[in-house]
Parts: sequence; C-alpha cells; structure tokens
Amino acid sequence: MSKKPKNAISPTREEDYPEWYQQVIKAADLAENSPSRGCMIIKPWGWGIWEQIQSALDAMIKEGGAENAYFPLFIPLNFLEREAKHVEGFAKECAVVTHHRLEAKDGKLVPTGELEEPFIVRPTSETIIGDAFSRWVQSYRDLPLLINQWANVVRWEMRPRMFLRTAEFLWQEGHTVHADEECARKEVHRALEMYRVLAEDYLALPVIMGEKTETERFPGAVSTLCIEAMMQDRKALQAGTSHYLGTNFSQACGINFLDEKGEQKLGHTTSWGVSTRLVGGLIMTHADDDGLRVPPKIAPKHAVVLPVIPKDEQRAEILEYTEGLSKELRELQYAGKSLVVEHDTRDLRGGEKSWSWVKKGIPIRIEVGPRDIESGSVVIFRRDQNAKEKIFLKRNELVEKLPSILDEIQANYFKQAKNYQAEHTTTKVKNLEEMKEYFTPKNKNKPEIHAGFVLAPYAESKESEKLINEFKVTVRCFPLNQDGSEGNCVVSGQPTKKKAIFAKSY
Amino acid sequence: MSKKPKNAISPTREEDYPEWYQQVIKAADLAENSPSRGCMIIKPWGWGIWEQIQSALDAMIKEGGAENAYFPLFIPLNFLEREAKHVEGFAKECAVVTHHRLEAKDGKLVPTGELEEPFIVRPTSETIIGDAFSRWVQSYRDLPLLINQWANVVRWEMRPRMFLRTAEFLWQEGHTVHADEECARKEVHRALEMYRVLAEDYLALPVIMGEKTETERFPGAVSTLCIEAMMQDRKALQAGTSHYLGTNFSQACGINFLDEKGEQKLGHTTSWGVSTRLVGGLIMTHADDDGLRVPPKIAPKHAVVLPVIPKDEQRAEILEYTEGLSKELRELQYAGKSLVVEHDTRDLRGGEKSWSWVKKGIPIRIEVGPRDIESGSVVIFRRDQNAKEKIFLKRNELVEKLPSILDEIQANYFKQAKNYQAEHTTTKVKNLEEMKEYFTPKNKNKPEIHAGFVLAPYAESKESEKLINEFKVTVRCFPLNQDGSEGNCVVSGQPTKKKAIFAKSY
Repeated sequence: MSKKPKNAISPTREEDYPEWYQQVIKAADLAENSPSRGCMIIKPWGWGIWEQIQSALDAMIKEGGAENAYFPLFIPLNFLEREAKHVEGFAKECAVVTHHRLEAKDGKLVPTGELEEPFIVRPTSETIIGDAFSRWVQSYRDLPLLINQWANVVRWEMRPRMFLRTAEFLWQEGHTVHADEECARKEVHRALEMYRVLAEDYLALPVIMGEKTETERFPGAVSTLCIEAMMQDRKALQAGTSHYLGTNFSQACGINFLDEKGEQKLGHTTSWGVSTRLVGGLIMTHADDDGLRVPPKIAPKHAVVLPVIPKDEQRAEILEYTEGLSKELRELQYAGKSLVVEHDTRDLRGGEKSWSWVKKGIPIRIEVGPRDIESGSVVIFRRDQNAKEKIFLKRNELVEKLPSILDEIQANYFKQAKNYQAEHTTTKVKNLEEMKEYFTPKNKNKPEIHAGFVLAPYAESKESEKLINEFKVTVRCFPLNQDGSEGNCVVSGQPTKKKAIFAKSY
Repeated sequence: MSKKPKNAISPTREEDYPEWYQQVIKAADLAENSPSRGCMIIKPWGWGIWEQIQSALDAMIKEGGAENAYFPLFIPLNFLEREAKHVEGFAKECAVVTHHRLEAKDGKLVPTGELEEPFIVRPTSETIIGDAFSRWVQSYRDLPLLINQWANVVRWEMRPRMFLRTAEFLWQEGHTVHADEECARKEVHRALEMYRVLAEDYLALPVIMGEKTETERFPGAVSTLCIEAMMQDRKALQAGTSHYLGTNFSQACGINFLDEKGEQKLGHTTSWGVSTRLVGGLIMTHADDDGLRVPPKIAPKHAVVLPVIPKDEQRAEILEYTEGLSKELRELQYAGKSLVVEHDTRDLRGGEKSWSWVKKGIPIRIEVGPRDIESGSVVIFRRDQNAKEKIFLKRNELVEKLPSILDEIQANYFKQAKNYQAEHTTTKVKNLEEMKEYFTPKNKNKPEIHAGFVLAPYAESKESEKLINEFKVTVRCFPLNQDGSEGNCVVSGQPTKKKAIFAKSY
C-alpha cells in the first residue's frame, strides 16, 4: 500500500483536536449527548468497554480484600455541612432535590410536596458512608473495614464533555477505615498501585503515579495520590485518585473504636476512585484519524469475521464456513477468558461494514471470501497497523496465533503511548519564564495542541502555584518515583530535592 | 438431636411476621435503613446476593440478544408529560431536582441556582430511552432494537420497607422496539420466561406467570405480564413484570421507521424489569426462624470452613489443615463456576461464629477439630436441615459430594416453597362472600398471616375489581396457563373461561 488511505475521521487530530474527539465518539458509536443537560447516553460499544474495565477492576478490588456494598443516592443536606473543606469543594456543583411529587396545574406539571430538608444527589459518598461506618466500627476487631461501591454520582458541570466531564458519571469509590495512619497510608498506596495496573496493563495507558499539591487535593483530604496520563494533545488527564483522609471524616462522622487497651480512638480513613473518565482517556490516548483503537484486554469484542460474498448464490456456503470459523475462534482463550468474536452477517456493502469496525477499534478484522475458502486461508487486518494492510494466513495459523497477535497489539498500544509521553516530556525548563514559553502555543491556529509535560524541581508554595496557574498550567503531581537529587525550584529558585510534573490538563 | 434448638431470630414468623422480616435482615447482615429517608444501605452479604442475581440474569439478557447501555439519571420534566397515563402513574412519587448549587447563608447551606426546567430523578426510563430510540431507529434494518440498562431508580415511598419498597432501588430495565405487534409480544413473553427461569432455577422461588388486569397494568402499557410468588405470610409478591407498550411510547417519543416498502411506521415497544425486590422475595420465601437460607446458585459463598481449636497450642496446626481443605474445596466446580469457600479464622467463640453463618444462610458449614484431622473426617451442617444436625463425612467424601449436596439443597428449597404455595392455594372459593370469608384473618391477634391464594373464574370488570379491593385483596393475574374450562365469575357470576389468582399482596 503506497497510497495513504483517506481518513475515516474528519477533522483529524491535527486539524481540530476537540472536534476530532467528538467525531471519534460518534464514529465508534460510544456515546451521545442527552437532552438532560450535561448527562450523556453511553451506547452499547462504550458501555461494553466500561463493563470490561469494571470486570478487571472489580476482581482486583476483591483481591485486595474490599467487599462491595451500596449506599443511598441521596445525602441529607446537613451531612455535607459536617466537614468544612468538603462542603467548600462540593456545594458549588450539587444537584438538589427539594420536592417529592408533581401536580398538574394549567396543563403543566409543577413540583409539590416540598421536603423539610433538601437532599443532595451524591457528588461522592464520604459523608453518607462515614455515617454508616460510625455504626459499623466499634472495636479494633472491626478494622480494617474495606468497602467499595459501584455507583453513579452527580457534579454539576458548566462545560460538560462526553466521558471527560459530565454532570452524571459512573465510578467506583472505595472507602476504608484503619486503626492508624500507617495502615491507612498503606491502603492509599495499594489502591493507587491497583489503578496503575488497571491503566497500564489493561487500558495500555502509561501513567505517572504521584502526589497532589495542597491546592489540588480532594476537599477534606490530608493527602491525595493520583495517576496522570498524557493525551494526544499533550494535556494531562487525572485518571484516578486515592486519598488519605486522616481523621477528618472520622471526626465529622463519629467513626470511633475501642483499641486493644480499651481506649477510644478515631479511625483513619481513605477513599479512592476511578470513573467512566477512563474511557475518555482511552480515546484520547489510542484513537487515531481512523477512529478508536481498543486495547484487546478491555475490548468488548476481540475480532470480527467478515464474510465476502461476491455473488448471491455463494451466500449460504460462505456463511456456513464463516460461522464455523467464528465458532472455532470463540473456543480460544485470551487473558483468561474466551475470545469474543463477532460474525458480521449484516446486509451492508463490504467497505462500509469493514470501516464500521475500523472506527470502533476492534483489534482484528478477518475477511473470508470464496477463494480464501478454497485455499484454506484468511485475510486479517490488525488495528495497530494501517487500516488497509493485509496479512495473509492459513486458517490453522490464525487459530494458533490469534491470542499472541492480540498480545502484540496490546503491547504495541502501550509502547506507542509510552514513547509519546517520553517524547513530549521535557526536563530542560529551568525557570518560570522558560515554562511560560514552553506552554505558549507555537502555532496560533492550533491552540489546542500543547507542548507536553515539564518535569522540574519544585518547592511547593501557594504563591508559586498561582504564578503557574496564571498561564493555565497546573502542578499535576510530585511523582512518587523521585531521584532525590537537589535542584532549584523552577518557580522560586529555592533549593529542593523534589521534582514535579507541570502540564495543562483536563 | 431431640431437643428443639432455641431460634436465632426473635420474634419468630408465627409471633410477628413483619418484625421477623426486619430481624432476619439484621441477623443476616443484609441491609439497614439509612438516614436518607426511604433509602436503604445494602451491606456486603445483601449486595453479594444481588451480584449473583445480576450475573445470572445479565448472561440470560445477553443471550436473548439485548445489549447493555446507560441512560441519564435525570429526566426533563416535559418528557414525563408526553404520555398521559404514564405521567398519572408516576408524577405522584417523583424526586424533583430544582437547584444546582448550594450557598452558605447564616451558617446553613441553602439551595441556589434554580433550574429553568426541573429534572425528575428517573422512576423508570421509558420516556428518556424512547427519546434516544427516536434517533436510533430510522429503518426496518434497525429493528429489533434490544437494549438493557442496570440502574438505580427512585419512586418516593410513604411507607418504605427494606428491599420490598424503598425510595431508591436497583434494577435492570429492558427496552425494545419491534416492527410489529407480533414481534413485540413475542419479546414480552421471552422476557417473562427469562424471569421465570431466574426466579425458579436460581432463586428457587416458584412463580405463577400471568397477565395483569387493566387496573393493575403499568402506566402506559397495553398489556402487563408478571411473575407472582407466594411469601410465607401467604401474601403475593410481584417479582417481575414485562410490558407490551403498543405504540403508546413510540407516539409520545416519535419512534418511527421506514418499512421495507418505504412507508413510515410507528415502532411497537416493550419494557421489562426486575429489581432488588427479588432479595426481599428471597428472604420472605426461604428464611426461617434461624435466619436467612440462601439457595446455593445465588449464594455469595457456598460453604464456610470453621476450625475448632480447643487449645491455643493446636492453633497453627489446625489452621494449616483447614486452610488446605478450603483451598481444595475452592477448586471444585458448582453450576459452572468455582466454589466460593470462606475459611473463617475470626477470633470468636465457636458457637457465636457458627450461628453467624446459620443466620446468613450459607448453604454448608464445615467444622474441623483435632480429632477430625486425626481420623481424616469432617462434620458438616446443611442449612436446609436443622441447624444442629451433624453429618459425619470422610474428607474425600466431602470433596466428592459437595457439589451434589449443593444441588440437593437448591432442589429442596424450591420443593418446599412449591409445596407451600400449593398447600395455601384454594380453588374452592365460589363467590364474593366466600372470598371475603377466606381472606378474613381467623386469628385476630395475627392479622399479618393470611389465608393464601384463591384461583377462581373471573370475568374482568372494573366494578368487580373494586368490590374485591374493598377488603384489600387484588387480582394478581390471569395465569398464562389456563385450562379453558367454563365457570362462573367469582364476583359477578357471569360465565367465563378464564381463571384469575386473587391475594393480598406487597
């Protein structure tokens, strides 16, 4: 193939990155905006990816000792008031339920049955779960208490963006109580490592594990750890967080226990979560100008078999063959599960059909026509290669190699993203002036493509952070992995042994 | 064992049925009431049962061809207004979101940011999903469209009761569009049969499949099918419903398609759902005066290994042995999955520990002490038998027989419930007077234990239904399985070939 194929997605990343993102979502049939402002509809292919993420993560959560439970959607208003910083952080973006019925007046429905105390729709569940924990935790024997919830949450968003920032989103939130700070901090790190594994080994997203500055912390936390990923516009995406909450919520909610000496103590709590935002991160990391590319380990389907039927009278015979092939492939194992193989018999033109799967990002397409049947061979297309690059295999070779080809694709996606992140991370920025210069768009027509990440010595201070924020850059995190060498803070020039990552972000 | 053991649950079913229900939930650690009025907290053991139900049903839903998706929690008020009967049915019990932020005033948080149009929290999703379907369905090629959603819904409840009737509950709702009535009605029956299999083969709940009268129909449906189960107070529980919606919602939402002749047609839609209410049905059907009994096929854990440690110096040796046994049992298969076996090493007195598992209803307890280790044997207790009934087995016998013992327990629970339903269903009631007499509590001190079900000829009419409703009995359904013989309506005396089930209900 010498001629560059026409791209399936218009505009391309280069032409208009934000619009390209919307068009990939549409072309891959992942989701759509809903008439409920800020809320999105997750369509079957998007939901299928989320189900795979859930399934992988749920197993890790249970392996880590947490049990799933479910807490109310509605939180009494006064619960939010109990933790001062928490209320500051969340009160501004809450959906408030004030009435519990509707009545028809002049042909219109109007709210009636005003509640004595309004409910807020949970933006996160520390306060309502903390209240339950205050009953569940009595003695040191009840600790550690490790609970996880899969739920929808609502944070009012003025500028919603599908998957990345929506009023309603879906997530899991882990909430744990421990006897002391050491145990709690261990759990915070354990959860973060679990998220790194999810991001890197399943979603093929290379991430930087780090700690947030005070300004960027979760409202009410003592310390917030995070994983940060680089998108293809070189902005950072916070892909998961894990918080050490100290005794702040124990104090607010009354989580006390009798220790082994019979003394009353406050529990040390943690919380950690990842959300449907990961699907946004997946798109922005792996999609290309032909549409989505889904890493095999979280693909709802691994391969599609596309019968090629030149003449109508060949239909029955070809479909019988491709059905048999599909069945054989479904008996293969990949990553501990049976392969999911679609046999696409839709009555569509071949090109349209094939491109619909390219755009969805299915890892492998398998075409079989009459001549392939005769010669006992198939033509396959890998999504990590050019959309029109054909690979000719014997049928038995396909059966033998399919799982290892999927492994290769998975590894390729990770390597590509890892290289991209490395290429666009600089350690050469020495001061605020250089940082500002680095983050100033070089091409005024493309303000949406950014320079990348800066890794530089940083002495944390609110004043320095304000100076950086002025040109819309934030401190993403202090990476956990530090070399400990001394340098001068990129903002203040003060000596420091810690380096931080700076970037524009979602 | 000649002496009847003391019951773990007080009061017993006989003493106070409604309170017994609450106490079983507490003793089995299934759920608790929350400070958010009408909402409950589902605790890990209760959630574990729901997860098993979800897993079994989700597989059947996908096998039936439906795909999962996710739609917004919030529905614009005007959507509800579109279907006249639907709004009548749901407007009275809606949670209404009117504001999107909170502000501190005089130290209190007050709602601000009033919405131009309020949102209702979905009580069911026909209108918002119908709106999406109006975009997704264009041509006959798009049909049938089969979508399912796992979600939380809210219906304001004045008299909430855990699992049975809570303001927020969890469910799945299937929504489908078909080209004509015949296809749609087939889907309605398919979904109902799927629910029968879930209820009978997994939850061991014998159910009657039937059709609701007009009065009892889903608001907006042309026909509502249901499965009805008998609880141990002989009241009926509607355990699942499947609705043929005709073109009512297609008209309201604009679901049109071009048929093969190029003519514009309205889609025929269906919806079907089961909820966390099933867990309530499970408790009320299988629990006894010692607590819950969970059918093995939906038990979060199948067996618990309880080490018996008479002297502290034997601890290490015994725990090593019981850990090994637990591991061996976990390699066994039951109902297509690995057995889940808990090794309970908690530092509790033996009796307390053992009873905690009786109350949770784990199918099998396995006790192992030093003498059992010496003789290579174990003592097991089956939850379908008396809590203190010991069964002595060699270790290898246990390994060999455990899956088949679980099968026996599953079958026993179903048989017991089926017999109970048969014993308390009468066909002898001939007229309204006799029906009233049948449903009048015989013991005034126990108004909560009812007579059972009446199966009798019934000619549907609103007037007749009102007469029955006067003594708080409802027509549960016309069973699908009718013998077609002619009889006289139990209320009006009119000749009819159809029989109906009458009962008090939840």
